[in-house]
Amino acid sequence: MVTGDFCLCIVGTFIRGLETTATYVPTNQEFVLNSPTITSMKYWPGGLGKTSNCCLVMAQLITQGEKRGIHLFFVQIRDIETHQPMPGVESGDIGTKFGFGSNDNGYLKLTNARIPRENMLMRYSKVLEDGTYVPPKNQRIGYGTMVFVRAHIVTNSARGLAKACVIAIRYSAVRRQTEVSPGGMEAQILDYQTQQYKLLPLLASAFAMYFTGRYAEDYYEEIASEIEEGKLDSLNQLHAVCAGLKAFVTWVCTAGIETCRLCCGGHGYSHASGLPKLYVFYTPGCTYEGENNVMMLQVARFLMKLYPDIKRNVPIHKFVDYLGADLTLKSCMTAEVAIGCLLKAYEHRAARLLSEAASRVESLVRSGKSHQEAWNASTVVLTWAAKAYCHAFVFRTFSQIVTDAAVDKNTKDVLTALCKLYAVHGILENLGEFIQDGFFSPKQVSLLKNKLADLLAEIRPNAVALVDAFDYPDKVLDSCLGRYDGQVYQALYDYAKSSPLNQQEVLDSYHKYIKPAQLGQSTRHEQPMARL
Amino acid sequence: MVTGDFCLCIVGTFIRGLETTATYVPTNQEFVLNSPTITSMKYWPGGLGKTSNCCLVMAQLITQGEKRGIHLFFVQIRDIETHQPMPGVESGDIGTKFGFGSNDNGYLKLTNARIPRENMLMRYSKVLEDGTYVPPKNQRIGYGTMVFVRAHIVTNSARGLAKACVIAIRYSAVRRQTEVSPGGMEAQILDYQTQQYKLLPLLASAFAMYFTGRYAEDYYEEIASEIEEGKLDSLNQLHAVCAGLKAFVTWVCTAGIETCRLCCGGHGYSHASGLPKLYVFYTPGCTYEGENNVMMLQVARFLMKLYPDIKRNVPIHKFVDYLGADLTLKSCMTAEVAIGCLLKAYEHRAARLLSEAASRVESLVRSGKSHQEAWNASTVVLTWAAKAYCHAFVFRTFSQIVTDAAVDKNTKDVLTALCKLYAVHGILENLGEFIQDGFFSPKQVSLLKNKLADLLAEIRPNAVALVDAFDYPDKVLDSCLGRYDGQVYQALYDYAKSSPLNQQEVLDSYHKYIKPAQLGQSTRHEQPMARL
Repeated sequence: MVTGDFCLCIVGTFIRGLETTATYVPTNQEFVLNSPTITSMKYWPGGLGKTSNCCLVMAQLITQGEKRGIHLFFVQIRDIETHQPMPGVESGDIGTKFGFGSNDNGYLKLTNARIPRENMLMRYSKVLEDGTYVPPKNQRIGYGTMVFVRAHIVTNSARGLAKACVIAIRYSAVRRQTEVSPGGMEAQILDYQTQQYKLLPLLASAFAMYFTGRYAEDYYEEIASEIEEGKLDSLNQLHAVCAGLKAFVTWVCTAGIETCRLCCGGHGYSHASGLPKLYVFYTPGCTYEGENNVMMLQVARFLMKLYPDIKRNVPIHKFVDYLGADLTLKSCMTAEVAIGCLLKAYEHRAARLLSEAASRVESLVRSGKSHQEAWNASTVVLTWAAKAYCHAFVFRTFSQIVTDAAVDKNTKDVLTALCKLYAVHGILENLGEFIQDGFFSPKQVSLLKNKLADLLAEIRPNAVALVDAFDYPDKVLDSCLGRYDGQVYQALYDYAKSSPLNQQEVLDSYHKYIKPAQLGQSTRHEQPMARL
Repeated sequence: MVTGDFCLCIVGTFIRGLETTATYVPTNQEFVLNSPTITSMKYWPGGLGKTSNCCLVMAQLITQGEKRGIHLFFVQIRDIETHQPMPGVESGDIGTKFGFGSNDNGYLKLTNARIPRENMLMRYSKVLEDGTYVPPKNQRIGYGTMVFVRAHIVTNSARGLAKACVIAIRYSAVRRQTEVSPGGMEAQILDYQTQQYKLLPLLASAFAMYFTGRYAEDYYEEIASEIEEGKLDSLNQLHAVCAGLKAFVTWVCTAGIETCRLCCGGHGYSHASGLPKLYVFYTPGCTYEGENNVMMLQVARFLMKLYPDIKRNVPIHKFVDYLGADLTLKSCMTAEVAIGCLLKAYEHRAARLLSEAASRVESLVRSGKSHQEAWNASTVVLTWAAKAYCHAFVFRTFSQIVTDAAVDKNTKDVLTALCKLYAVHGILENLGEFIQDGFFSPKQVSLLKNKLADLLAEIRPNAVALVDAFDYPDKVLDSCLGRYDGQVYQALYDYAKSSPLNQQEVLDSYHKYIKPAQLGQSTRHEQPMARL
């Protein structure tokens, strides 16, 4: 590869409908690529606009007069010597974006662009010299990479949320605001319960999501050899789980970073805080590598396919076993708020929402709709079920890792409190889904509300130590508010002074625009500083 | 005023603790201003950094050796002739921010800056020549402007959300994605229930919030003469309501604009969509003019003060009358889902959460905590109560205006559906708070879930007409996705082509950086386009 090269795999959600074509011409052993319509142009690939000279293009393969499905092609788009576009290639920058200011995301239009036969990526399927198409042994084998990338997004989103928590929690320990009792010192804002309620569950989420992402990555490694052998059963399970986790976690990460930013008051709006930059960096995770709503419906489809097995108590994969929970049972929750009872609650909710969604689809079918129509008229409740499934998966993974962790008792106590906070907060924020069928009694709900307040107070003294444990150096955080040494105000002042606008006391624009405008006005206002 | 002047009133939440001082010196009839610490520097005022030559400064007034509270002072900060800072003034730009790139928000440090006595704003309180302090007749009379500004923020936030809805809903009617039934045409994404579930309740919110903001503005006009006469009872009510509405509405607006942006897929990240710009413009509403969490606790404090009257059934102001709802009653909800039953549900929830918060505070006091401690340990539940109060207020206002509207039947039917959607969606998103005490039966919850799906389907055909009704010209929306004519893809392509990076086919940076790097590499890779 050459400097300026890049790889892109941009497709829409509806892959079968991709309009770009790669037609094989046996006489000169070339593919001819075309993006025939304005909607078929490639959009967004980073570096495509002005920098890259090669790229990977997803296109509908046509050979021997037949469509063969979507394949990947290596396309040189600019001349190696002159950097001018190759024949049949039109490409450019797409303009400014939400963040990523230094990236020339581009568009690409192909009109009879020609590439040699060897530039098709032929690991799993092939086009022979005479145009014969050799299909892959298993259509789903290409899913492996996709699954791995999504697992990685989970871990990485957890890191993004963790960084935002470091910044907001450290700043909340430095920043003081309003005396708690008259005449007293102003309190650290982290001592306010409302601030704790926003930040500490996010801190718990960062841990939960990180452990979950690592678990999925490890599981992928575990089954890598099965995948190579073409045994794809475990991959299919992980594929569904990772689609859901990717969506669940990127949503939490994105909203969480903004909550952290808003917890920093006015300074959260300054790039000195480091928070706006984190937000624009992580929010695209909701859209790339599978749009989140589409991902959730993919999970829902997977769960609904299993549902008959679940109802008939057929043994199912460990990733979904709890969906067979007995829905007639009530919660075992006591004042202790044991992890086991919390787990049961999440499993109950996931199982109940799946059953509710299945009932809705079934009843619409019974009322005369086609399965497709019934599905389309139920996607909201199906999404609720899928989210509940993912939420249970994350909490189960978190609690398992905390329970099994070989750490000293003090550390385990702190992690257990964090794990409980994650679960209790999640229940109270989605309370209706947990209590709609009377699973919790009103008294149990009150217990949980009190426990929430207790957990916030219990974790507060360890909050700064917990974010320190992520061990992000100041250089990585790049934030005046999140500095390890807490010297926030001096750092903000230094940051302000370093603004390019401050290199001159009076800017040229003053002489060019403001001064002449003042002169124009001063005939009307001889004494601008006169009494108001 | 002179070009480049501006006004600022920057204070923290803890006004009494403001560190900047203005000390009156009778001998030369001047105030001497000081911001003695790094935390007392003024930060953020727009235009302060390099442009303005005058500003308004909030400072603790000291005269005749005594602190007299916070007052406003008109301070010249730069020389009218040279634009150099005045003696004792240090000011500069604070650096880049989340949006507002063209604004030189600034910092200001005052060290013995002197201004004439007349530069104190003396409408309500005065400092006489000899230093005698004349206090205002009523300490709260200054609240009027604050209340009016907050009411205006409500209306304006509604406009921001409305613009985002116009863009996202129009785009969702143009954009097609995935065939609904095999072989069919790809569906408009607005036909997907999940997309409707995200966008249509936001559309309803934009209407609800706009009507509520206008109502508060009108009410302010109505009581303006009372205020001038010093009768502040109605103002006190409106003050509390507007604090809450400002917070409630800016939260919905901010989150809603982001939802609209994420509903536009990849293109929502481009500035061509107009959505990132809307977000960074409106999100500061959560922080300025009263930080939202602080506002909600102000509302909670107001409601808790009334609570004894509410319990004793003492007649109270119409803004809060429904907090006396009988908590033993069950919901009257039937399959028709009447507005009246929806109203009762919101009122019940608000009344119940207030009562629950009051019980918690009382029980903590009984267990030996001071009132202050009990309050601080209950701010999460107090915030829930305050939010529920605001939510009920918005829905009540919306439903009242829709019911009373003198419009034709078809229009009223559409508005009624929108109003019901607002309420049903709000119930399902906060279901736990509505059903925790068994107010709704499980069957009623099922009714509401089905009604939600029906309302989405009912409103869908009118969605584009409803956003057209806001009547924002393309120029105001400034969005390729939200164009009235629906020519989205051509507009995106034109926008891309107009990127400054596209003015040259091969950028100078290629010759400066990439080409030399390629030459360095080409000794290793003679044939960069060889087989993979």
